[in-house]
Amino acid sequence: MLSKSQIQFVKSLKIKKFREEHHLFIAEGVKTVHELLSSSIKIKQLYAVSGFFRTTVIDASIERFEIKESELERISMLTTPNDVLAVCEMPAYELNPETLKDKLTLVLDDIKDPGNLGTIIRIADWFGIENIICSPQTAELYNPKVVQATMGSLSRIKVHYKDLSAFLGHQTSNIGLPVYGALLEGENIYTETLSPSGFIIIGNESKGISETLVPFITHKISIPSFSHFKPSIGEAESLNAAVAAAVICFEFRRRK
Amino acid sequence: MLSKSQIQFVKSLKIKKFREEHHLFIAEGVKTVHELLSSSIKIKQLYAVSGFFRTTVIDASIERFEIKESELERISMLTTPNDVLAVCEMPAYELNPETLKDKLTLVLDDIKDPGNLGTIIRIADWFGIENIICSPQTAELYNPKVVQATMGSLSRIKVHYKDLSAFLGHQTSNIGLPVYGALLEGENIYTETLSPSGFIIIGNESKGISETLVPFITHKISIPSFSHFKPSIGEAESLNAAVAAAVICFEFRRRK
Repeated sequence: MLSKSQIQFVKSLKIKKFREEHHLFIAEGVKTVHELLSSSIKIKQLYAVSGFFRTTVIDASIERFEIKESELERISMLTTPNDVLAVCEMPAYELNPETLKDKLTLVLDDIKDPGNLGTIIRIADWFGIENIICSPQTAELYNPKVVQATMGSLSRIKVHYKDLSAFLGHQTSNIGLPVYGALLEGENIYTETLSPSGFIIIGNESKGISETLVPFITHKISIPSFSHFKPSIGEAESLNAAVAAAVICFEFRRRK
Repeated sequence: MLSKSQIQFVKSLKIKKFREEHHLFIAEGVKTVHELLSSSIKIKQLYAVSGFFRTTVIDASIERFEIKESELERISMLTTPNDVLAVCEMPAYELNPETLKDKLTLVLDDIKDPGNLGTIIRIADWFGIENIICSPQTAELYNPKVVQATMGSLSRIKVHYKDLSAFLGHQTSNIGLPVYGALLEGENIYTETLSPSGFIIIGNESKGISETLVPFITHKISIPSFSHFKPSIGEAESLNAAVAAAVICFEFRRRK
Protein backbone atom coordinates (compact mmCIF):
# COMPACT_ATOMS: atom_id res chain seq x y z
CA MET A 1 0.00 0.00 0.00
CA LEU A 2 1.42 3.38 -1.03
CA SER A 3 1.67 6.14 1.54
CA LYS A 4 0.19 9.55 0.87
CA SER A 5 3.66 11.09 0.69
CA GLN A 6 4.82 8.50 -1.87
CA ILE A 7 1.85 9.25 -4.05
CA GLN A 8 2.54 12.96 -3.74
CA PHE A 9 6.21 12.45 -4.56
CA VAL A 10 5.54 10.48 -7.75
CA LYS A 11 2.81 12.86 -8.86
CA SER A 12 5.06 15.86 -8.23
CA LEU A 13 7.34 14.56 -11.00
CA LYS A 14 4.65 15.51 -13.52
CA ILE A 15 5.88 19.05 -12.96
CA LYS A 16 9.11 20.27 -14.53
CA LYS A 17 10.17 22.24 -11.47
CA PHE A 18 10.14 19.12 -9.28
CA ARG A 19 11.79 16.95 -11.94
CA GLU A 20 14.66 19.45 -12.07
CA GLU A 21 14.87 19.74 -8.30
CA HIS A 22 15.20 15.96 -7.83
CA HIS A 23 16.97 15.21 -11.14
CA LEU A 24 14.36 12.50 -11.64
CA PHE A 25 11.80 11.67 -14.31
CA ILE A 26 9.06 9.13 -14.90
CA ALA A 27 8.82 6.44 -17.56
CA GLU A 28 5.85 4.11 -17.90
CA GLY A 29 4.79 0.90 -19.60
CA VAL A 30 6.32 -2.55 -19.87
CA LYS A 31 8.17 -2.00 -23.14
CA THR A 32 9.70 1.33 -22.17
CA VAL A 33 10.74 0.15 -18.71
CA HIS A 34 12.29 -3.05 -20.10
CA GLU A 35 14.38 -0.94 -22.49
CA LEU A 36 15.45 1.33 -19.64
CA LEU A 37 16.40 -1.68 -17.48
CA SER A 38 18.82 -2.84 -20.15
CA SER A 39 20.28 0.63 -20.73
CA SER A 40 22.74 2.86 -18.89
CA ILE A 41 19.95 4.97 -17.39
CA LYS A 42 19.68 4.43 -13.64
CA ILE A 43 16.25 3.46 -12.35
CA LYS A 44 15.69 4.47 -8.73
CA GLN A 45 12.22 3.07 -8.05
CA LEU A 46 9.77 0.73 -9.72
CA TYR A 47 6.04 0.80 -8.97
CA ALA A 48 4.44 -2.21 -10.60
CA VAL A 49 1.76 -4.87 -10.39
CA SER A 50 2.86 -8.30 -9.18
CA GLY A 51 2.90 -9.82 -12.69
CA PHE A 52 5.62 -7.41 -13.76
CA PHE A 53 7.93 -8.37 -10.91
CA ARG A 54 7.34 -12.11 -11.50
CA THR A 55 8.48 -11.85 -15.13
CA THR A 56 11.28 -9.29 -14.95
CA VAL A 57 14.85 -9.53 -13.67
CA ILE A 58 15.58 -6.45 -11.59
CA ASP A 59 18.84 -5.25 -10.09
CA ALA A 60 18.86 -5.27 -6.27
CA SER A 61 19.78 -1.57 -6.16
CA ILE A 62 16.31 -0.59 -7.40
CA GLU A 63 13.64 0.10 -4.78
CA ARG A 64 10.54 -1.84 -5.71
CA PHE A 65 6.91 -1.34 -4.75
CA GLU A 66 4.34 -3.97 -5.63
CA ILE A 67 1.07 -2.13 -6.04
CA LYS A 68 -2.49 -2.77 -7.19
CA GLU A 69 -3.86 -1.65 -10.55
CA SER A 70 -5.97 0.92 -8.70
CA GLU A 71 -2.89 2.38 -7.04
CA LEU A 72 -1.04 2.51 -10.35
CA GLU A 73 -3.99 4.41 -11.79
CA ARG A 74 -3.60 7.01 -9.04
CA ILE A 75 0.07 7.75 -9.79
CA SER A 76 0.13 7.10 -13.55
CA MET A 77 0.13 9.86 -16.16
CA LEU A 78 -1.38 7.58 -18.79
CA THR A 79 -5.08 7.19 -19.56
CA THR A 80 -4.50 3.45 -19.64
CA PRO A 81 -1.65 2.57 -17.24
CA ASN A 82 0.45 -0.36 -18.37
CA ASP A 83 1.66 -2.46 -15.39
CA VAL A 84 4.69 -0.41 -14.36
CA LEU A 85 5.94 3.08 -13.57
CA ALA A 86 9.66 3.78 -13.13
CA VAL A 87 11.28 6.74 -11.39
CA CYS A 88 14.61 7.28 -13.18
CA GLU A 89 17.65 9.47 -12.71
CA MET A 90 18.34 12.04 -15.41
CA PRO A 91 21.58 11.05 -17.13
CA ALA A 92 24.29 13.68 -17.60
CA TYR A 93 25.92 13.58 -21.03
CA GLU A 94 29.04 15.49 -21.94
CA LEU A 95 29.10 16.76 -25.50
CA ASN A 96 32.50 16.89 -27.14
CA PRO A 97 31.96 18.31 -30.64
CA GLU A 98 35.11 16.46 -31.83
CA THR A 99 33.31 13.12 -31.39
CA LEU A 100 30.66 14.19 -33.93
CA LYS A 101 33.20 14.38 -36.78
CA ASP A 102 32.22 11.12 -38.45
CA LYS A 103 28.53 11.18 -37.50
CA LEU A 104 25.21 12.57 -38.58
CA THR A 105 23.67 14.74 -35.86
CA LEU A 106 20.21 16.27 -35.65
CA VAL A 107 19.87 19.87 -34.50
CA LEU A 108 16.39 20.88 -33.31
CA ASP A 109 15.56 24.56 -33.45
CA ASP A 110 12.63 25.12 -31.05
CA ILE A 111 10.62 21.92 -31.60
CA LYS A 112 7.79 22.79 -29.22
CA ASP A 113 5.47 19.81 -29.39
CA PRO A 114 6.46 17.05 -26.94
CA GLY A 115 5.04 14.37 -29.27
CA ASN A 116 7.21 15.66 -32.11
CA LEU A 117 10.35 15.65 -29.94
CA GLY A 118 9.64 12.10 -28.75
CA THR A 119 8.97 10.91 -32.29
CA ILE A 120 12.20 12.52 -33.54
CA ILE A 121 14.19 10.72 -30.81
CA ARG A 122 12.63 7.43 -31.97
CA ILE A 123 13.51 8.29 -35.60
CA ALA A 124 17.11 9.07 -34.57
CA ASP A 125 17.33 5.68 -32.88
CA TRP A 126 15.97 3.90 -35.97
CA PHE A 127 18.43 5.61 -38.30
CA GLY A 128 21.42 5.27 -35.97
CA ILE A 129 21.82 8.95 -35.08
CA GLU A 130 23.43 9.00 -31.65
CA ASN A 131 23.19 12.67 -30.69
CA ILE A 132 20.53 15.35 -30.89
CA ILE A 133 21.34 18.98 -30.10
CA CYS A 134 18.29 21.02 -29.03
CA SER A 135 17.84 24.75 -28.61
CA PRO A 136 16.95 25.72 -25.03
CA GLN A 137 13.37 26.51 -26.22
CA THR A 138 12.81 22.98 -27.52
CA ALA A 139 10.31 20.90 -25.47
CA GLU A 140 11.79 19.44 -22.29
CA LEU A 141 13.21 15.94 -22.75
CA TYR A 142 11.69 14.59 -19.53
CA ASN A 143 8.15 15.82 -20.11
CA PRO A 144 6.13 12.60 -19.71
CA LYS A 145 4.65 13.04 -23.21
CA VAL A 146 8.15 13.13 -24.69
CA VAL A 147 9.30 10.08 -22.72
CA GLN A 148 6.17 8.20 -23.83
CA ALA A 149 6.54 9.10 -27.51
CA THR A 150 10.17 7.88 -27.60
CA MET A 151 8.96 4.32 -26.90
CA GLY A 152 12.18 3.49 -25.08
CA SER A 153 14.54 5.14 -27.57
CA LEU A 154 15.27 7.77 -24.92
CA SER A 155 17.55 5.20 -23.30
CA ARG A 156 19.86 5.07 -26.33
CA ILE A 157 19.99 8.60 -27.74
CA LYS A 158 21.97 11.44 -26.17
CA VAL A 159 20.00 14.67 -26.15
CA HIS A 160 21.87 17.90 -25.38
CA TYR A 161 20.45 21.40 -24.86
CA LYS A 162 22.74 24.11 -26.18
CA ASP A 163 22.65 27.65 -27.47
CA LEU A 164 22.56 26.75 -31.17
CA SER A 165 24.27 29.90 -32.50
CA ALA A 166 27.21 29.37 -30.17
CA PHE A 167 27.34 25.64 -30.89
CA LEU A 168 27.13 25.97 -34.68
CA GLY A 169 29.54 28.93 -34.63
CA HIS A 170 32.10 26.83 -32.79
CA GLN A 171 31.65 23.79 -35.01
CA THR A 172 31.86 25.89 -38.19
CA SER A 173 35.16 27.46 -37.23
CA ASN A 174 36.76 24.44 -35.53
CA ILE A 175 35.32 21.29 -37.12
CA GLY A 176 33.88 22.42 -40.43
CA LEU A 177 31.27 19.72 -41.04
CA PRO A 178 28.48 20.49 -43.51
CA VAL A 179 25.31 21.95 -41.98
CA TYR A 180 22.09 20.96 -43.76
CA GLY A 181 18.94 22.97 -43.18
CA ALA A 182 15.46 21.91 -44.28
CA LEU A 183 13.96 24.98 -45.94
CA LEU A 184 11.06 25.25 -48.37
CA GLU A 185 13.30 27.01 -50.91
CA GLY A 186 16.21 24.54 -50.55
CA GLU A 187 17.72 22.21 -53.15
CA ASN A 188 15.77 19.05 -53.97
CA ILE A 189 17.03 16.40 -51.51
CA TYR A 190 16.51 13.68 -54.16
CA THR A 191 19.34 15.13 -56.25
CA GLU A 192 21.51 17.08 -53.76
CA THR A 193 24.83 15.54 -52.70
CA LEU A 194 24.54 14.35 -49.09
CA SER A 195 27.52 13.82 -46.84
CA PRO A 196 27.71 10.79 -44.51
CA SER A 197 28.48 13.14 -41.61
CA GLY A 198 27.30 16.58 -40.59
CA PHE A 199 24.44 18.42 -38.96
CA ILE A 200 20.80 18.50 -40.04
CA ILE A 201 18.78 21.42 -38.67
CA ILE A 202 15.03 20.87 -38.25
CA GLY A 203 13.08 24.09 -37.67
CA ASN A 204 10.16 24.99 -35.43
CA GLU A 205 6.71 23.60 -36.31
CA SER A 206 5.27 26.91 -37.44
CA LYS A 207 8.20 29.28 -37.91
CA GLY A 208 10.79 26.96 -39.46
CA ILE A 209 14.50 27.61 -38.92
CA SER A 210 15.36 30.83 -37.03
CA GLU A 211 16.86 33.62 -39.09
CA THR A 212 19.84 33.73 -36.75
CA LEU A 213 20.75 30.14 -37.70
CA VAL A 214 20.37 30.44 -41.48
CA PRO A 215 23.93 31.86 -41.93
CA PHE A 216 25.35 28.61 -40.51
CA ILE A 217 23.63 26.46 -43.15
CA THR A 218 26.07 25.28 -45.79
CA HIS A 219 23.47 23.22 -47.74
CA LYS A 220 19.82 24.25 -48.00
CA ILE A 221 17.71 21.22 -48.76
CA SER A 222 14.00 20.64 -49.31
CA ILE A 223 11.67 17.68 -49.65
CA PRO A 224 9.89 18.09 -53.00
CA SER A 225 6.12 17.91 -52.75
CA PHE A 226 4.31 16.12 -55.54
CA SER A 227 3.17 19.48 -56.94
CA HIS A 228 6.79 19.71 -58.08
CA PHE A 229 5.94 16.99 -60.62
CA LYS A 230 2.22 17.52 -61.12
CA PRO A 231 1.17 21.03 -60.08
CA SER A 232 -2.56 20.33 -59.66
CA ILE A 233 -2.02 18.00 -56.70
CA GLY A 234 0.36 17.89 -53.77
CA GLU A 235 -0.67 21.22 -52.31
CA ALA A 236 0.08 20.80 -48.61
CA GLU A 237 2.12 23.78 -47.49
CA SER A 238 4.52 21.88 -45.32
CA LEU A 239 5.20 18.57 -43.60
CA ASN A 240 5.08 17.97 -39.87
CA ALA A 241 8.53 18.56 -38.32
CA ALA A 242 8.99 14.93 -37.22
CA VAL A 243 7.93 13.67 -40.64
CA ALA A 244 10.42 15.99 -42.33
CA ALA A 245 13.15 14.75 -39.98
CA ALA A 246 12.30 11.13 -40.82
CA VAL A 247 12.32 11.61 -44.56
CA ILE A 248 15.64 13.47 -44.44
CA CYS A 249 17.32 10.84 -42.22
CA PHE A 250 15.97 8.09 -44.48
CA GLU A 251 17.50 9.72 -47.57
CA PHE A 252 20.87 10.35 -45.89
CA ARG A 253 21.02 6.68 -44.88
CA ARG A 254 19.99 5.47 -48.33
CA ARG A 255 23.04 7.17 -49.82
CA LYS A 256 25.42 5.50 -47.39
CA MET B 1 -23.71 37.73 -28.80
CA LEU B 2 -24.18 33.98 -29.04
CA SER B 3 -27.31 32.40 -27.65
CA LYS B 4 -27.13 29.54 -25.19
CA SER B 5 -28.55 27.14 -27.77
CA GLN B 6 -25.95 28.19 -30.37
CA ILE B 7 -23.17 27.55 -27.90
CA GLN B 8 -24.69 24.17 -27.06
CA PHE B 9 -25.04 23.29 -30.73
CA VAL B 10 -21.42 24.06 -31.59
CA LYS B 11 -20.13 22.30 -28.50
CA SER B 12 -22.27 19.23 -29.25
CA LEU B 13 -20.18 18.74 -32.41
CA LYS B 14 -17.25 17.73 -30.22
CA ILE B 15 -19.12 14.44 -29.87
CA LYS B 16 -19.12 11.87 -32.68
CA LYS B 17 -22.79 10.96 -32.19
CA PHE B 18 -23.91 14.53 -32.84
CA ARG B 19 -21.49 15.01 -35.72
CA GLU B 20 -23.00 11.98 -37.41
CA GLU B 21 -26.56 13.03 -36.63
CA HIS B 22 -26.08 16.46 -38.23
CA HIS B 23 -23.49 15.43 -40.86
CA LEU B 24 -21.43 18.37 -39.65
CA PHE B 25 -17.95 18.84 -38.27
CA ILE B 26 -15.79 21.63 -36.89
CA ALA B 27 -12.60 23.11 -38.28
CA GLU B 28 -10.66 25.88 -36.57
CA GLY B 29 -7.93 28.39 -37.18
CA VAL B 30 -7.26 30.92 -39.93
CA LYS B 31 -5.07 28.71 -42.11
CA THR B 32 -7.36 25.67 -42.02
CA VAL B 33 -10.52 27.72 -42.62
CA HIS B 34 -8.92 29.60 -45.53
CA GLU B 35 -8.04 26.27 -47.15
CA LEU B 36 -11.59 25.01 -46.63
CA LEU B 37 -13.06 28.21 -48.11
CA SER B 38 -11.15 27.60 -51.32
CA SER B 39 -12.09 23.89 -51.46
CA SER B 40 -15.17 21.92 -52.43
CA ILE B 41 -16.13 21.38 -48.78
CA LYS B 42 -19.27 23.32 -47.91
CA ILE B 43 -19.02 25.61 -44.90
CA LYS B 44 -22.36 26.22 -43.21
CA GLN B 45 -21.43 28.65 -40.45
CA LEU B 46 -18.45 30.80 -39.50
CA TYR B 47 -17.90 32.05 -35.97
CA ALA B 48 -15.07 34.57 -36.02
CA VAL B 49 -13.64 37.75 -34.56
CA SER B 50 -14.18 40.94 -36.57
CA GLY B 51 -10.64 40.98 -37.97
CA PHE B 52 -11.22 37.68 -39.76
CA PHE B 53 -14.32 38.96 -41.56
CA ARG B 54 -12.59 42.21 -42.54
CA THR B 55 -9.77 40.35 -44.30
CA THR B 56 -11.56 37.33 -45.80
CA VAL B 57 -13.88 37.05 -48.81
CA ILE B 58 -16.82 34.86 -47.84
CA ASP B 59 -19.60 33.45 -49.98
CA ALA B 60 -23.05 34.86 -49.15
CA SER B 61 -24.45 31.36 -48.56
CA ILE B 62 -22.41 30.99 -45.35
CA GLU B 63 -24.06 32.11 -42.10
CA ARG B 64 -21.64 34.35 -40.25
CA PHE B 65 -21.42 35.29 -36.60
CA GLU B 66 -19.05 38.01 -35.47
CA ILE B 67 -18.05 37.13 -31.92
CA LYS B 68 -15.64 38.26 -29.26
CA GLU B 69 -12.45 36.40 -28.34
CA SER B 70 -14.08 35.40 -25.05
CA GLU B 71 -17.04 33.84 -26.90
CA LEU B 72 -14.70 32.00 -29.26
CA GLU B 73 -12.91 30.59 -26.24
CA ARG B 74 -16.21 29.19 -24.98
CA ILE B 75 -16.98 27.22 -28.16
CA SER B 76 -13.44 26.40 -29.31
CA MET B 77 -11.82 22.99 -28.87
CA LEU B 78 -8.32 24.46 -28.96
CA THR B 79 -6.27 25.55 -25.97
CA THR B 80 -5.39 28.69 -27.90
CA PRO B 81 -8.29 29.55 -30.25
CA ASN B 82 -7.19 31.17 -33.49
CA ASP B 83 -9.73 33.80 -34.68
CA VAL B 84 -12.26 31.51 -36.42
CA LEU B 85 -14.32 28.35 -36.05
CA ALA B 86 -16.16 26.85 -39.03
CA VAL B 87 -19.07 24.42 -38.99
CA CYS B 88 -18.73 22.36 -42.17
CA GLU B 89 -20.79 19.75 -43.98
CA MET B 90 -19.28 16.27 -44.23
CA PRO B 91 -18.56 15.63 -47.92
CA ALA B 92 -19.76 12.39 -49.50
CA TYR B 93 -17.20 10.75 -51.78
CA GLU B 94 -17.97 7.88 -54.08
CA LEU B 95 -15.13 5.40 -54.46
CA ASN B 96 -14.84 3.76 -57.86
CA PRO B 97 -11.88 1.35 -57.63
CA GLU B 98 -11.38 1.68 -61.41
CA THR B 99 -10.26 5.30 -60.94
CA LEU B 100 -7.38 4.15 -58.74
CA LYS B 101 -5.69 2.22 -61.59
CA ASP B 102 -2.96 4.75 -62.32
CA LYS B 103 -2.60 6.06 -58.78
CA LEU B 104 -0.86 5.35 -55.50
CA THR B 105 -3.39 4.86 -52.70
CA LEU B 106 -2.82 4.53 -48.97
CA VAL B 107 -4.73 1.85 -47.04
CA LEU B 108 -4.88 2.36 -43.25
CA ASP B 109 -5.48 -0.73 -41.16
CA ASP B 110 -6.78 0.49 -37.77
CA ILE B 111 -4.73 3.65 -37.30
CA LYS B 112 -6.14 4.55 -33.89
CA ASP B 113 -4.37 7.76 -32.95
CA PRO B 114 -6.17 10.86 -34.31
CA GLY B 115 -2.89 12.76 -34.56
CA ASN B 116 -1.41 9.97 -36.69
CA LEU B 117 -4.43 9.92 -39.02
CA GLY B 118 -4.30 13.70 -39.44
CA THR B 119 -0.56 13.62 -40.08
CA ILE B 120 -0.97 10.84 -42.67
CA ILE B 121 -3.61 12.91 -44.52
CA ARG B 122 -1.14 15.83 -44.59
CA ILE B 123 1.59 13.47 -45.89
CA ALA B 124 -0.77 12.17 -48.60
CA ASP B 125 -1.44 15.74 -49.69
CA TRP B 126 2.29 16.52 -49.83
CA PHE B 127 3.08 13.48 -51.94
CA GLY B 128 0.04 13.82 -54.22
CA ILE B 129 -1.89 10.79 -53.01
CA GLU B 130 -5.54 11.58 -53.65
CA ASN B 131 -7.32 8.75 -51.85
CA ILE B 132 -6.95 7.02 -48.49
CA ILE B 133 -8.93 3.88 -47.69
CA CYS B 134 -9.42 3.31 -43.95
CA SER B 135 -10.64 0.27 -42.04
CA PRO B 136 -13.82 0.99 -40.07
CA GLN B 137 -11.76 0.83 -36.83
CA THR B 138 -9.44 3.63 -37.93
CA ALA B 139 -9.86 6.93 -36.02
CA GLU B 140 -12.83 9.00 -37.17
CA LEU B 141 -11.94 11.55 -39.84
CA TYR B 142 -13.98 14.35 -38.26
CA ASN B 143 -12.57 14.00 -34.74
CA PRO B 144 -11.38 17.58 -34.05
CA LYS B 145 -7.86 16.29 -33.34
CA VAL B 146 -7.72 14.70 -36.80
CA VAL B 147 -9.07 17.82 -38.52
CA GLN B 148 -6.50 19.94 -36.68
CA ALA B 149 -3.55 17.67 -37.50
CA THR B 150 -4.36 17.72 -41.24
CA MET B 151 -3.60 21.47 -41.30
CA GLY B 152 -6.11 22.01 -44.11
CA SER B 153 -5.13 18.96 -46.19
CA LEU B 154 -8.50 17.42 -45.25
CA SER B 155 -10.03 19.67 -47.90
CA ARG B 156 -8.05 18.02 -50.71
CA ILE B 157 -7.76 14.33 -49.83
CA LYS B 158 -10.63 11.85 -50.20
CA VAL B 159 -10.87 9.53 -47.20
CA HIS B 160 -13.06 6.43 -47.51
CA TYR B 161 -14.00 3.93 -44.79
CA LYS B 162 -14.33 0.37 -46.13
CA ASP B 163 -14.10 -3.22 -45.01
CA LEU B 164 -10.51 -3.75 -46.12
CA SER B 165 -10.74 -7.51 -46.79
CA ALA B 166 -13.71 -6.99 -49.11
CA PHE B 167 -12.08 -3.98 -50.78
CA LEU B 168 -8.69 -5.63 -51.33
CA GLY B 169 -10.36 -8.89 -52.39
CA HIS B 170 -12.33 -7.05 -55.06
CA GLN B 171 -9.34 -5.05 -56.30
CA THR B 172 -7.12 -8.14 -56.41
CA SER B 173 -9.52 -10.10 -58.58
CA ASN B 174 -10.76 -7.22 -60.76
CA ILE B 175 -8.01 -4.63 -60.99
CA GLY B 176 -4.85 -6.45 -60.03
CA LEU B 177 -2.68 -3.59 -58.85
CA PRO B 178 0.28 -4.41 -56.60
CA VAL B 179 -0.41 -4.27 -52.87
CA TYR B 180 2.56 -3.18 -50.74
CA GLY B 181 2.57 -3.87 -47.03
CA ALA B 182 5.03 -2.39 -44.55
CA LEU B 183 6.19 -5.31 -42.43
CA LEU B 184 9.29 -5.66 -40.26
CA GLU B 185 10.35 -8.76 -42.21
CA GLY B 186 9.69 -7.25 -45.66
CA GLU B 187 12.16 -6.59 -48.47
CA ASN B 188 14.42 -3.56 -48.09
CA ILE B 189 12.50 -0.65 -49.66
CA TYR B 190 15.79 0.93 -50.81
CA THR B 191 16.32 -1.92 -53.28
CA GLU B 192 12.80 -3.30 -53.93
CA THR B 193 11.15 -2.45 -57.26
CA LEU B 194 8.34 0.03 -56.61
CA SER B 195 5.44 0.51 -58.99
CA PRO B 196 4.11 4.02 -59.75
CA SER B 197 0.58 2.80 -58.92
CA GLY B 198 -0.87 0.45 -56.35
CA PHE B 199 -1.86 0.23 -52.72
CA ILE B 200 0.33 0.75 -49.65
CA ILE B 201 -1.02 -0.76 -46.43
CA ILE B 202 0.03 0.90 -43.17
CA GLY B 203 -0.68 -1.20 -40.08
CA ASN B 204 -1.95 -0.37 -36.61
CA GLU B 205 0.40 1.50 -34.24
CA SER B 206 1.00 -1.48 -31.95
CA LYS B 207 -0.23 -4.57 -33.83
CA GLY B 208 0.93 -3.78 -37.36
CA ILE B 209 -1.01 -5.19 -40.33
CA SER B 210 -3.90 -7.56 -39.46
CA GLU B 211 -3.31 -11.22 -40.23
CA THR B 212 -6.44 -11.28 -42.36
CA LEU B 213 -4.94 -8.68 -44.72
CA VAL B 214 -1.49 -10.25 -45.13
CA PRO B 215 -2.66 -12.65 -47.90
CA PHE B 216 -3.57 -9.64 -50.08
CA ILE B 217 -0.02 -8.24 -49.92
CA THR B 218 1.86 -8.85 -53.16
CA HIS B 219 5.05 -7.03 -52.04
CA LYS B 220 6.24 -7.05 -48.44
CA ILE B 221 8.48 -4.07 -47.84
CA SER B 222 10.40 -2.73 -44.86
CA ILE B 223 12.31 0.40 -43.95
CA PRO B 224 15.80 -0.73 -42.94
CA SER B 225 16.93 0.56 -39.58
CA PHE B 226 20.53 1.59 -39.24
CA SER B 227 21.26 -1.60 -37.29
CA HIS B 228 20.99 -3.21 -40.74
CA PHE B 229 24.31 -1.54 -41.58
CA LYS B 230 25.88 -1.18 -38.13
CA PRO B 231 24.36 -3.62 -35.66
CA SER B 232 25.45 -1.84 -32.47
CA ILE B 233 23.25 1.20 -33.15
CA GLY B 234 19.81 1.75 -34.64
CA GLU B 235 17.95 -0.37 -32.14
CA ALA B 236 14.48 1.18 -32.13
CA GLU B 237 11.95 -1.59 -32.61
CA SER B 238 9.69 0.27 -34.97
CA LEU B 239 8.84 3.63 -36.43
CA ASN B 240 5.68 5.60 -35.68
CA ALA B 241 2.95 4.71 -38.22
CA ALA B 242 2.78 8.21 -39.72
CA VAL B 243 6.57 8.34 -40.01
CA ALA B 244 6.59 4.97 -41.79
CA ALA B 245 3.89 6.20 -44.18
CA ALA B 246 5.91 9.33 -44.94
CA VAL B 247 9.15 7.49 -45.62
CA ILE B 248 7.40 4.98 -47.91
CA CYS B 249 5.55 7.68 -49.89
CA PHE B 250 8.80 9.63 -50.19
CA GLU B 251 10.61 6.61 -51.65
CA PHE B 252 7.78 5.77 -54.09
CA ARG B 253 7.82 9.35 -55.34
CA ARG B 254 11.61 9.44 -55.62
CA ARG B 255 11.47 6.54 -58.10
CA LYS B 256 8.93 8.27 -60.33
